[in-house]
Amino acid sequence: MKVLVQKYGGSSVATPERIRAVAQRVAKSLNGEYKVVVVLSAMGDTTDRLLKMAYQITPNPSSRELDMLLSTGEQVSIALFCMALESLGISAVSLTGAQVGIITDSAHTKAKIMEIDTRRLQQELQQHQVVAVAGFQGINVRGDIVTLGRGGSDTTAVALAAVLEAEKCEIYTDVDGVYTADPHLVPNAKKLERISYDEMLELASLGSKVMQARAVECGKKYGVKIIVRSSFKENSGTIICEEDPSMEKEFIRGIAHNTSEAKITIRNVPDQPGIAAKIFGILAEANIVVDMIIQDVSEHGTTNISFTVEKTDLPQALKLAEKVSQEINAKGVSADKNIAKVSIVGIGMRSNAGVAAKMFQTLSEENINIQMISTSEIKISCVIEENAVQRAVQALHRKFELDKESIENEL
Amino acid sequence: MKVLVQKYGGSSVATPERIRAVAQRVAKSLNGEYKVVVVLSAMGDTTDRLLKMAYQITPNPSSRELDMLLSTGEQVSIALFCMALESLGISAVSLTGAQVGIITDSAHTKAKIMEIDTRRLQQELQQHQVVAVAGFQGINVRGDIVTLGRGGSDTTAVALAAVLEAEKCEIYTDVDGVYTADPHLVPNAKKLERISYDEMLELASLGSKVMQARAVECGKKYGVKIIVRSSFKENSGTIICEEDPSMEKEFIRGIAHNTSEAKITIRNVPDQPGIAAKIFGILAEANIVVDMIIQDVSEHGTTNISFTVEKTDLPQALKLAEKVSQEINAKGVSADKNIAKVSIVGIGMRSNAGVAAKMFQTLSEENINIQMISTSEIKISCVIEENAVQRAVQALHRKFELDKESIENEL
Repeated sequence: MKVLVQKYGGSSVATPERIRAVAQRVAKSLNGEYKVVVVLSAMGDTTDRLLKMAYQITPNPSSRELDMLLSTGEQVSIALFCMALESLGISAVSLTGAQVGIITDSAHTKAKIMEIDTRRLQQELQQHQVVAVAGFQGINVRGDIVTLGRGGSDTTAVALAAVLEAEKCEIYTDVDGVYTADPHLVPNAKKLERISYDEMLELASLGSKVMQARAVECGKKYGVKIIVRSSFKENSGTIICEEDPSMEKEFIRGIAHNTSEAKITIRNVPDQPGIAAKIFGILAEANIVVDMIIQDVSEHGTTNISFTVEKTDLPQALKLAEKVSQEINAKGVSADKNIAKVSIVGIGMRSNAGVAAKMFQTLSEENINIQMISTSEIKISCVIEENAVQRAVQALHRKFELDKESIENEL
Repeated sequence: MKVLVQKYGGSSVATPERIRAVAQRVAKSLNGEYKVVVVLSAMGDTTDRLLKMAYQITPNPSSRELDMLLSTGEQVSIALFCMALESLGISAVSLTGAQVGIITDSAHTKAKIMEIDTRRLQQELQQHQVVAVAGFQGINVRGDIVTLGRGGSDTTAVALAAVLEAEKCEIYTDVDGVYTADPHLVPNAKKLERISYDEMLELASLGSKVMQARAVECGKKYGVKIIVRSSFKENSGTIICEEDPSMEKEFIRGIAHNTSEAKITIRNVPDQPGIAAKIFGILAEANIVVDMIIQDVSEHGTTNISFTVEKTDLPQALKLAEKVSQEINAKGVSADKNIAKVSIVGIGMRSNAGVAAKMFQTLSEENINIQMISTSEIKISCVIEENAVQRAVQALHRKFELDKESIENEL
């Protein structure tokens, strides 16, 4: 039995009309050759609406009850979707995360999938043309409902594609693929035909909102062929797969930007062993994810330590930073919310010197000051002031010639 | 461990504010003596909102997917309710019908509870002060979500009170007890302090919307002490329990009315054996519940058969009646939607002759024509024209002196 996994995001199923449209699209793709597993997100702004109610009850809802609450959103989607398929004469059945056997750890609101018991899913695939699965959710060993974190439906889809050994996993979304930059900022950004898992991973975690990073990791681990496509248009989309030689011909594949972070600086930190461990240990305990970290060159036995966190974590992170600053006799703490991170990504840069220099040169020509730098094998990120982000992305896009027809496309 | 079961209906939890108010009320009732199981319905008009979406998808949604859809409503309520309790410092946990081990048959949208596996519930009661249970739902042996039909949360509450051997089961609703008649129709209707299961059963199935009849049956079967109370006021409510001698001192305990039925008459039916079985067999196959049936005295070898069905079933019932009428060579079918059923209920009438005569006399004095009559040991129902219903209920209430202080209340 050949299996195809498709995932439709919240905007694709925002209204009953759209759910019917998705059902028609799935119906068309049925040709007797494939059984289809369709993973759905909650309708439109359902998750936000539920969250709003929770916060009307209490500012600190428990994560177990949040999961109990939020998991209803996807359940509504799969039920309505199966009704739509059945009304088209297609045999379909819906399954919650619990019913589909997605066993996770107990980290409520951000659980990881531990294993998938596919027995029921396989049974239903024998009996039905389509099985609709509630994305974003599973159960822990106690039988409690847990969720996989925002965008977790992508992970559900890729993980199911892996265990079912599906031919491919199609991620339907409101954009028609992965672009060299955000088309809102760079109107002549080009859609990529193919991109490697690693590149996509950098782009995903760097703020291209196309796909959840964890889903891409899972795809890479199990070699799942992922295709990002539009649920509204018939375009071919972008294939995310193993890297191949043609990808290396280009230095840079895409430019990501992110304005959701804020910067905290602790000034005049005593330059002693164990201080950094103390600062970031306290933040980790509070479950605050720190992205970039830089430490100035030490002068007179003290140094400045700067790091970025999500803006939503800023108030708590600042409080902790101030507490730790007093404990270690630092001179004080400051914060800056008006920052942006701009990143260039491409596996080609591994074998090409001078990419970093070219990036810094480009920003300098635009009179944009670089506040922080961080690099990996296949990406370079710079923190700049928020106001300059559009100019920076456009200049980099132009300088690295991402608007030109690529070699890959010419082949 | 002493256990108390409380059930709050949809209007009691219609908004986050009301959910917090219910949490405060439950918190106040905790005194260390009892563990409390709280059964909740879906918030306000949630079920109707979900149904509307289903019908926007298709006029004939499958019952399995309807249950998958509707069961989310109660899940939202219990999650928000536990958040509210936790914010008051009370240890609470929410459980879906599946998690609480409510095993039902597979009659989707109107399932019956087969058994309740209380292991998890008992565990949680050891660890928490309050366990919130999603009403109206369970799972069948396949693990599919099923619902118990409208008002099914009452049944969930009473069934849990039975298996947990709870001291009592409090049904909190938007009325403050069971009245001698609908206070909207009879302003001086009196609240009953106590009522027997059998009387309540007649009142419940006769159109007093206070409680689901199945829940009362379950309470009678297992001897659960049920108390109907207001969730907004602090009144003592009405106790539903085994009948006791004081109840028999009064002939009549209450007057119910129902305008949700319609009457169908099949004229000149050949008076032969098997004809009635044929007519009502066909209706039963179509799952149409027939309430009252009368057959005229036969004349010239034919007779008229009249029966009542829910108005919502009328179109389908009429079609079937017309089909069967042709098959059996009857003369034709007519329907009347403008009818009402008025019933008097009381265990006292078993040992008191003349109650029926008094009822008919009262209606006659009001110039109200009786179209159909049906009786049981403890109730008499008359079908009359819909316009006369208020007059009929008021006259009966006066004639049977239900507005007077009762003996029971004087004791």
